[in-house]
Amino acid sequence: MPMPKPLPSSMSDPSQFPRIGVLPSGPLDSLADVAGVSVGHCTLDAGAVQTGVTLIRPHAGDMFLNKVPAGVAVLNGFGKSMGLLQLQELGQLETPLVMGSTFAVGTLATALSRQAIAQHTEIGRDWPTVNPLVLECNDGYLNDAQAFAVQAEHLAAAAADARLDFAQGSVGAGRGMSAFGLKGGIGSASRRVRAGAEPCTVAALVLANFGRPQALTIQGRVLGPLLQERLNAAAAAGVGPSSPENMQVEKGSIILVLATDAPLDARQLGRLARRAGAGLARTGSDYGHGSGDIALAFSSAYTLPHRLSEPMPSIAMLHEACLDPLFQAAAEACEQAIVKALFAASSVRGRNGHTRLGLSELMPDWPAYVSAGPQR
Amino acid sequence: MPMPKPLPSSMSDPSQFPRIGVLPSGPLDSLADVAGVSVGHCTLDAGAVQTGVTLIRPHAGDMFLNKVPAGVAVLNGFGKSMGLLQLQELGQLETPLVMGSTFAVGTLATALSRQAIAQHTEIGRDWPTVNPLVLECNDGYLNDAQAFAVQAEHLAAAAADARLDFAQGSVGAGRGMSAFGLKGGIGSASRRVRAGAEPCTVAALVLANFGRPQALTIQGRVLGPLLQERLNAAAAAGVGPSSPENMQVEKGSIILVLATDAPLDARQLGRLARRAGAGLARTGSDYGHGSGDIALAFSSAYTLPHRLSEPMPSIAMLHEACLDPLFQAAAEACEQAIVKALFAASSVRGRNGHTRLGLSELMPDWPAYVSAGPQR
Amino acid sequence: MPMPKPLPSSMSDPSQFPRIGVLPSGPLDSLADVAGVSVGHCTLDAGAVQTGVTLIRPHAGDMFLNKVPAGVAVLNGFGKSMGLLQLQELGQLETPLVMGSTFAVGTLATALSRQAIAQHTEIGRDWPTVNPLVLECNDGYLNDAQAFAVQAEHLAAAAADARLDFAQGSVGAGRGMSAFGLKGGIGSASRRVRAGAEPCTVAALVLANFGRPQALTIQGRVLGPLLQERLNAAAAAGVGPSSPENMQVEKGSIILVLATDAPLDARQLGRLARRAGAGLARTGSDYGHGSGDIALAFSSAYTLPHRLSEPMPSIAMLHEACLDPLFQAAAEACEQAIVKALFAASSVRGRNGHTRLGLSELMPDWPAYVSAGPQR
Amino acid sequence: MPMPKPLPSSMSDPSQFPRIGVLPSGPLDSLADVAGVSVGHCTLDAGAVQTGVTLIRPHAGDMFLNKVPAGVAVLNGFGKSMGLLQLQELGQLETPLVMGSTFAVGTLATALSRQAIAQHTEIGRDWPTVNPLVLECNDGYLNDAQAFAVQAEHLAAAAADARLDFAQGSVGAGRGMSAFGLKGGIGSASRRVRAGAEPCTVAALVLANFGRPQALTIQGRVLGPLLQERLNAAAAAGVGPSSPENMQVEKGSIILVLATDAPLDARQLGRLARRAGAGLARTGSDYGHGSGDIALAFSSAYTLPHRLSEPMPSIAMLHEACLDPLFQAAAEACEQAIVKALFAASSVRGRNGHTRLGLSELMPDWPAYVSAGPQR
Repeated sequence: MPMPKPLPSSMSDPSQFPRIGVLPSGPLDSLADVAGVSVGHCTLDAGAVQTGVTLIRPHAGDMFLNKVPAGVAVLNGFGKSMGLLQLQELGQLETPLVMGSTFAVGTLATALSRQAIAQHTEIGRDWPTVNPLVLECNDGYLNDAQAFAVQAEHLAAAAADARLDFAQGSVGAGRGMSAFGLKGGIGSASRRVRAGAEPCTVAALVLANFGRPQALTIQGRVLGPLLQERLNAAAAAGVGPSSPENMQVEKGSIILVLATDAPLDARQLGRLARRAGAGLARTGSDYGHGSGDIALAFSSAYTLPHRLSEPMPSIAMLHEACLDPLFQAAAEACEQAIVKALFAASSVRGRNGHTRLGLSELMPDWPAYVSAGPQR
Repeated sequence: MPMPKPLPSSMSDPSQFPRIGVLPSGPLDSLADVAGVSVGHCTLDAGAVQTGVTLIRPHAGDMFLNKVPAGVAVLNGFGKSMGLLQLQELGQLETPLVMGSTFAVGTLATALSRQAIAQHTEIGRDWPTVNPLVLECNDGYLNDAQAFAVQAEHLAAAAADARLDFAQGSVGAGRGMSAFGLKGGIGSASRRVRAGAEPCTVAALVLANFGRPQALTIQGRVLGPLLQERLNAAAAAGVGPSSPENMQVEKGSIILVLATDAPLDARQLGRLARRAGAGLARTGSDYGHGSGDIALAFSSAYTLPHRLSEPMPSIAMLHEACLDPLFQAAAEACEQAIVKALFAASSVRGRNGHTRLGLSELMPDWPAYVSAGPQR
Repeated sequence: MPMPKPLPSSMSDPSQFPRIGVLPSGPLDSLADVAGVSVGHCTLDAGAVQTGVTLIRPHAGDMFLNKVPAGVAVLNGFGKSMGLLQLQELGQLETPLVMGSTFAVGTLATALSRQAIAQHTEIGRDWPTVNPLVLECNDGYLNDAQAFAVQAEHLAAAAADARLDFAQGSVGAGRGMSAFGLKGGIGSASRRVRAGAEPCTVAALVLANFGRPQALTIQGRVLGPLLQERLNAAAAAGVGPSSPENMQVEKGSIILVLATDAPLDARQLGRLARRAGAGLARTGSDYGHGSGDIALAFSSAYTLPHRLSEPMPSIAMLHEACLDPLFQAAAEACEQAIVKALFAASSVRGRNGHTRLGLSELMPDWPAYVSAGPQR
Repeated sequence: MPMPKPLPSSMSDPSQFPRIGVLPSGPLDSLADVAGVSVGHCTLDAGAVQTGVTLIRPHAGDMFLNKVPAGVAVLNGFGKSMGLLQLQELGQLETPLVMGSTFAVGTLATALSRQAIAQHTEIGRDWPTVNPLVLECNDGYLNDAQAFAVQAEHLAAAAADARLDFAQGSVGAGRGMSAFGLKGGIGSASRRVRAGAEPCTVAALVLANFGRPQALTIQGRVLGPLLQERLNAAAAAGVGPSSPENMQVEKGSIILVLATDAPLDARQLGRLARRAGAGLARTGSDYGHGSGDIALAFSSAYTLPHRLSEPMPSIAMLHEACLDPLFQAAAEACEQAIVKALFAASSVRGRNGHTRLGLSELMPDWPAYVSAGPQR
């Protein structure tokens, strides 16, 4: 079982992964289909250190001066993310979204605050403090998380890397993540729908680090038992994790970020975020006790000024009765993003020789089991 | 396409419906597998009046004197249920759970209060008032809901009917409900797992009144397009709803009630209830905007005394890390209960000649599409 | 101790009660200072039946077609109010707000639904069902609540009575309510502040049925011990409640409704509603376990159309940093409304000869203890 | 106006401050009256660096192995505290509670995680990660927060300092805090009540950094205008803040921690925490928009084992109807703790010569305005 390490890809070629659902994708089939949004990674790949940082920039401007409306859905709160408290109160996001290893949250939050202060020395003095948003999963199986390797410079590198054609899989914050006993990581997808009379995009980016092998479900097919066989065979052959039969508890976590260009307010974005749970469930998750399953949605349709001297936006929100297509798109995009994370992830060997295999490497014959074309 | 009206069944014969998931069921595969729990129906079937009442009794004793611990998860709060406010604050249930048509909530709540007062004249005088729990869906397509046909006597009849081998499908509160453009209604299922060292049961009862035809998913198979064809054919043949192509909005609602004999406190029961959303999503729901999707879980492991003179229970709750099997069971039992509701439901013709067909009548050949035996 | 029964007054004469806080009132010092808002009562005063209905109309138009944005704060959820579930999800109010006795909630909700159906027969058929909002306190000490005296006609009467110069005290839903061992009931007040550059009004209406005598606090003065003495003396003289010394548990409840003409969205209105708890606390409440303390806020600045064919409002919300004066106004208006409820309430004798005395009757010398003019 | 710098005191001498409420205190009138609880400070006092760390140890043992039940109330979520997400989901606390400056949260969280890992290397590997709880206020007026002076060693020092007779006022995390235009900081108080048949203690510790001068209220007396005069005079005399007239916005924040030895579960502790808002309101707070007002309560009556091999506690929780005295105690203890923080705080001069005066220094004649003995 050779394991070529493919270059991280942006997974825009639909033949590389099973397609989910019935709605059309945007041109990039990624979070970057929402105009203005870009994503950057910094990947640390050095022996036992297999970790990184992923940063989502909702717009190219100054996030503190021009905040974006946002909402949260806590699907299962076993998590250590920072910044959600204020986001829930004010319904706005005032820094880029940063994702990383659990033990890196403190360092990343401090670095984000320093970054904001560097731009605006008034912060925490004449202005209120800044609310850094840092989301996390535990990559401690592959990564020596106790080494606390992530530093402020890695956040800066991820920020500098922000682009539209970002890589997926075992990159950035996804470098050390595991899912379904396989290599997890970053996945992204988009869907196009009509919101009332207007077309709009709902897109997702996930940091996937969850799931029991037995539960893996793609396009509604329960691939778990087959996956378990392959993992057992890989273990017998000396590749892959040595005790795949012990992976029957849903540990880890998943962060699901949704972006849309539809004009929604914070309450509506909270409703949208809740639909991430539907997509997640369809991949085999029961929102396990120990899994910090956090969904967040933001809109790029308008910004909220920090300064009182600037006018608040005077735009009409979407009528509540127009939300259903967006809800369907959110669920589909999240499910698709998880599937893409699994298919984009290349195998990684890290701490103590621990290994996670990429799904496309372990099951190159996947088209025999699920549809390589459109679902159903 | 003849439409024999089968007797309502308790759906304990597993050949009658596709099985969901991998966990074993209890002997009745219903909510009544949790010791002490019984269910009663009162069905109104008279021309344009197609409605009813379903009542769940958590135990055979006095619910006001011996309350049961309970938790809630509001998956989508477009609903008019009554009693959830206090349930969320106090984590306890002090009346039977009653389900009915949206417009019947007021009448049923009043009747429940009167019932409690009849047992304890102190209520609302020397004692606090009682918190009636009434859950609802809108059966206005089949039922002339504006006739406000449900009266206190129907609640009494449902209470008197409480039993272990209760019927499923187009009965009780399920009489007028629709799901996926089909006849919806009552479904129930149970799963057996280990909670730490001890075996326990997690069981579900749903009142299913949700879903777009195109989204119908059973055992992970998207049957929606096939269903749509059959509905179109039925419409052309003059049976079934006349405009099945217009049913592309997720309306209606679903109530999902979970019971367990595991010792959980209210907070843990709230966590359990949230997993109903995973099972629901797998049947094709995105928790549509207009769908009041409410889940509730209670434990029969202990009761909470109304009287201060009686001792509070001194029992150990389940360790949080033992909850995963229960979460899986909750998701499976809910998905199974929805499937059973669809397969148990016989066709109903009601208001204005509106008709909903039973899935097993419209697709008697279902075993050609999904597994008649265990899933996968 | 003679007890003349004064006519219910609108309490617009500031010499009748101690003034709270420092902000100016609107011309009516009531909820009706928010343009468009009117209030109606129906009072039942017949021996053991001492109860009623109070209805708040957010605007004079069709509430179902033109909904108003609203938010909720559950200070203590020991309550049986109906309609809050959907209000929290959608952030909008689509019927008048109705208040009454706990056991009347079902009847009032049914009547509200019937009223909406009478206006729009599409409701529950081609349109979704309606979400009736009914708020309650338990008036079972004075009123024979178990008589279930309130009927649909009383709701209609309250609606027909809607006006700007509505009465306060022992009227409408407040007829049978008790507070601090005294007669409670309806009170209302308003405050004027600047919201950014613009002047705006924040007004409150409360249904006060809470509080231990010992805790009564007005203008920060703890009048409890003095009140207790007076209650003891009244009991010895054969007037007033016979066992005032037993009223040491905070029972009852309070409903606090806030209205504003500032342009706030549902999330901001939820924040505003939370400040009702500050005003409530200053009167001596600890949000007692058995007290259903529910606050709700709505804005009259814009409406939300039911019909998709009508445009959503394109108006700028208030900048978050402008909310502080509104928060202060909300707390002050609520505290003032409670004080006015106590001072407006005339004594009532009801069920079993139970009596509650009006504060201005029991303590006509109140200016000796608290300021009759502006506070402090 | 000389400003002697008194030694920090534990404020156990009741003649030093106005007493709040009617309930008796425990022997220390502090959080340490709850058996097992200790508090440590590390204070940084060096020119522009005026900050520190305060640590609360719920028990002397291993917090990760023996977690304590806890609940949260978010009064106003404008805050950057870390660890609340998981605390709300699981209802348990598994590290000491740490308080500090906003910009120190990341560093303190990392240090707390490292501390837990040092004790248990399994954390984040064979065991789940740890949930560090770090609560914050912004001390940026007095402290050069942008210097990020707090380091891991300061957490260690605070932990090593944990004791029963801890200091209050301008110490630890309270070093740089401001309240009502005055010096704020750490305050603590306790109250003794009966919980059913048993006596119990409810105690509070606050980190006070909130309030407009005009709003200051002690024992119900609005001292704000008087305070404003004194601040103006101090400014004219060249001591104190130079623009006291500009302090009309409620900025800053307050953290309110409650401890009790009564056996409450996490849901009940959440209810207890909500009552902190009543005490806070009585000091003049409206929970200002920009004030992160967070309350948290834990019980020392039992612990929850980390290891599945250890039995869960089998103890009876307090009957819900016994909670009222605890609610009153929580509100009183919080109000008292705020007052003690103000009276214990010595003046501090920090960044840019910014100064906050201690209340007892600015108003040594306070007994002329509020009662030096018991309230009322």
